[in-house]
Amino acid sequence: MTLTRNSGHVILVGAGLAGSLLAVYLAKRGFRIDMYERRPDMRRTRISAGRSINLALSVRGIHALREVGLYAGIEPILIPMRGRMLHSVAGEQTFSPYGQREHEVINSVSRAELNMRLMDLAEEHDNVRIHFNTRCTGIDLSTGTVLFRNEGTGGDFTAAADTVIGTDGSASAIRLEMQQRGRFNYSQSYLEHGYKELAIPPDAQGGFRLDHNALHIWPRGSYMLIALPNTDRSFTCTLFLPFAGETGFDALATPGAARVFFARDFPDALAMMPTFESDWAANPASALVTVRSAPWHAGGTAALLGDAAHAIVPFFGQGMNCAFEDCSALAACVDVHGADWSRVYAEYEERRRDNANAIADLALENFVEMRDTVADPRFPLLKEANLTLERRHPGHFIPKYSMVSFHRIPYAVALERGRIQDRILDEVTADARSVADIDWARADRLVTTLLPPFPATTL
Amino acid sequence: MTLTRNSGHVILVGAGLAGSLLAVYLAKRGFRIDMYERRPDMRRTRISAGRSINLALSVRGIHALREVGLYAGIEPILIPMRGRMLHSVAGEQTFSPYGQREHEVINSVSRAELNMRLMDLAEEHDNVRIHFNTRCTGIDLSTGTVLFRNEGTGGDFTAAADTVIGTDGSASAIRLEMQQRGRFNYSQSYLEHGYKELAIPPDAQGGFRLDHNALHIWPRGSYMLIALPNTDRSFTCTLFLPFAGETGFDALATPGAARVFFARDFPDALAMMPTFESDWAANPASALVTVRSAPWHAGGTAALLGDAAHAIVPFFGQGMNCAFEDCSALAACVDVHGADWSRVYAEYEERRRDNANAIADLALENFVEMRDTVADPRFPLLKEANLTLERRHPGHFIPKYSMVSFHRIPYAVALERGRIQDRILDEVTADARSVADIDWARADRLVTTLLPPFPATTL
Repeated sequence: MTLTRNSGHVILVGAGLAGSLLAVYLAKRGFRIDMYERRPDMRRTRISAGRSINLALSVRGIHALREVGLYAGIEPILIPMRGRMLHSVAGEQTFSPYGQREHEVINSVSRAELNMRLMDLAEEHDNVRIHFNTRCTGIDLSTGTVLFRNEGTGGDFTAAADTVIGTDGSASAIRLEMQQRGRFNYSQSYLEHGYKELAIPPDAQGGFRLDHNALHIWPRGSYMLIALPNTDRSFTCTLFLPFAGETGFDALATPGAARVFFARDFPDALAMMPTFESDWAANPASALVTVRSAPWHAGGTAALLGDAAHAIVPFFGQGMNCAFEDCSALAACVDVHGADWSRVYAEYEERRRDNANAIADLALENFVEMRDTVADPRFPLLKEANLTLERRHPGHFIPKYSMVSFHRIPYAVALERGRIQDRILDEVTADARSVADIDWARADRLVTTLLPPFPATTL
Repeated sequence: MTLTRNSGHVILVGAGLAGSLLAVYLAKRGFRIDMYERRPDMRRTRISAGRSINLALSVRGIHALREVGLYAGIEPILIPMRGRMLHSVAGEQTFSPYGQREHEVINSVSRAELNMRLMDLAEEHDNVRIHFNTRCTGIDLSTGTVLFRNEGTGGDFTAAADTVIGTDGSASAIRLEMQQRGRFNYSQSYLEHGYKELAIPPDAQGGFRLDHNALHIWPRGSYMLIALPNTDRSFTCTLFLPFAGETGFDALATPGAARVFFARDFPDALAMMPTFESDWAANPASALVTVRSAPWHAGGTAALLGDAAHAIVPFFGQGMNCAFEDCSALAACVDVHGADWSRVYAEYEERRRDNANAIADLALENFVEMRDTVADPRFPLLKEANLTLERRHPGHFIPKYSMVSFHRIPYAVALERGRIQDRILDEVTADARSVADIDWARADRLVTTLLPPFPATTL
């Protein structure tokens, strides 16, 4: 890739993961970047936790970090997870690998740690400046002038640049302004479920209490608990539960009621949670939303990227990976169109729209798989049939989870092929009790008939 | 119906059609009503026109007006339309009746005239007060205190009551506040098409230039022109056209370009439009949006009704009729639960949600029928088969258009049965060139097998 050297000035609203990475992409292309962040500098002030689902960095995110030379700086804080560890109510643990190859892992990482590291790396560029404690209160989309409030002094001020990119997350202030213009398509759709964070600290010897190279799942049908490892040898746990109903968040108002529920459904996890009651009381039950919007830009004046454009639910571990892929795509469009922002944004949106919609759908579907299907007695058979077809048809049949997590196959392609593959799997396992019963010649025929081979360039 | 006498105070935000009618429903039940309207009093100040699709009042709206004794006051300003008059490019006119019975008509009415009449009728109640020139700028949903700005003086003030109902239309300020709370599902979805209003004035003798007991349609595939009669013997015309493309609103920027387009596609209409150029220049090309939201209320503090809760596109002529049905349903819930607003709103939403979603879908589908299907060579056959099946199966097979426009069958039922009926019609006319070719015994079997009879109470 030859970088064009651009002059010009870009405002990024939001110094989260996407904003910090995008700042590096644009700084390397010669732009001067001013990044405005609502919160204080998390590297100096401890920001209240309790709403930080651990993230799973996978191939798409890693590729973007590599493109800008940041991966080496991030790798030390990653913990590879090789598969799912399923916990039954009786406490049995069953391991199910994500892939068949050594490198087919996803990587647990703390959102806060990763964000701080990315801010450090962004600030290593002379042309990047981060302004903290500045809340965006609006934008004039005809001129690109952004309104900010200094959260310390309460004073209002404005800033302007050649263009403005909203990397300000699912409640984006930039998007809210776009939404109030005409002809902006928008939806926000909440799950019936919320999530609450809990903790499994290290054991008395300072070690991990569970296998730390796995993503732990306690699937319980309509709800589930998960746990991801941290570098301090603790696990961050997240309970996904409906708000309503007998064992919903609204009914489990007290830590005492929650303990009774956990003792029944998650006894092994509860035994590893010495701060269960205080965590339950302190950490909120937060909502889970899917946001879709169109268009993602107002001419060349302003654009949206990452969650600000398309927030998704966390069940495929792809929110950050998708946002990082957005950054890579936007940078590639700058390499084609330079600082002609209107063209840059139009092509970036064209490249990303269907993919963002597809990963939103995939993430919603994977919730059902995680909480429900993995506990289905047919799950091991489907899983084995899936991996067998991958071995029989290399570069042709790739399990859906792998297409999303271990390849950079466009999400829209993964969604479409995944659905065809699901139909094939259902059909060939319908009358089977084990893989030995499967008619492989028929399965092979279905694969070669219904799925075109992948072009070599996408793999 | 026995009216319970309530004391209590209700704020309505928006004195449009829904707000004015709801004021009467609630005033008759004993509540004190303060209604705040952003615009000046349209009975004293002429409000800029050019964005007033004529409305088609049909059975649902008439039923609501009758419930509160207002229909007699409205009837004089209605013009019955007995069917569609289709205009070909060559200028031929073909009439297609909406129903088979004398009373199966829809009624053209001017939005402004109807609104003024309803305000007059609302103000006949001592307990209704309308405040004009007051823009709602926000609401505290925990207390129900509403923020207003006096559009004349610019001064801000607050008002509070027992509950607040947003009847403030598709860009509802009350809904915007709800949307920024957690767990509010919301979507706004725009058509690629916009609309522009044009006019056919009376002829030199002061008479109608077209049959005034018809809704005129110039269907042209992906776009169309329509015209509805006014009491002053003019017609209000509305052009529905995509914004983009060679003959879209964006390309037809000048009246001259528009004239060339009309001369090609709508020559007979153009010949009746002496103010074509000035209308084209003065009237905006406005957007068409479908809005869905959930929930429609914040406990008992505030609720949404009509377009504020569920704006729809105008192609089934049901936006106002649906909002009036909302008023009737809300009043029925007050008759059950009194001023227990939280219960009133929960039951109102339960009764109306699926129906509001259904009419939104039906309105989108009817756009395709109006602009495209009615010009299809198979349309007369389908239409005749439809009416024949209605005659053969009275109270059992009712054409979709009739279920929506001439009955108070719930919209959700009309949508579901309409889809089954469409499949039956497609199937029995597939190989037919005229109704004589239809196998009626088979058609009868399909109707009695696939469609349960209507319960007598819904008809």
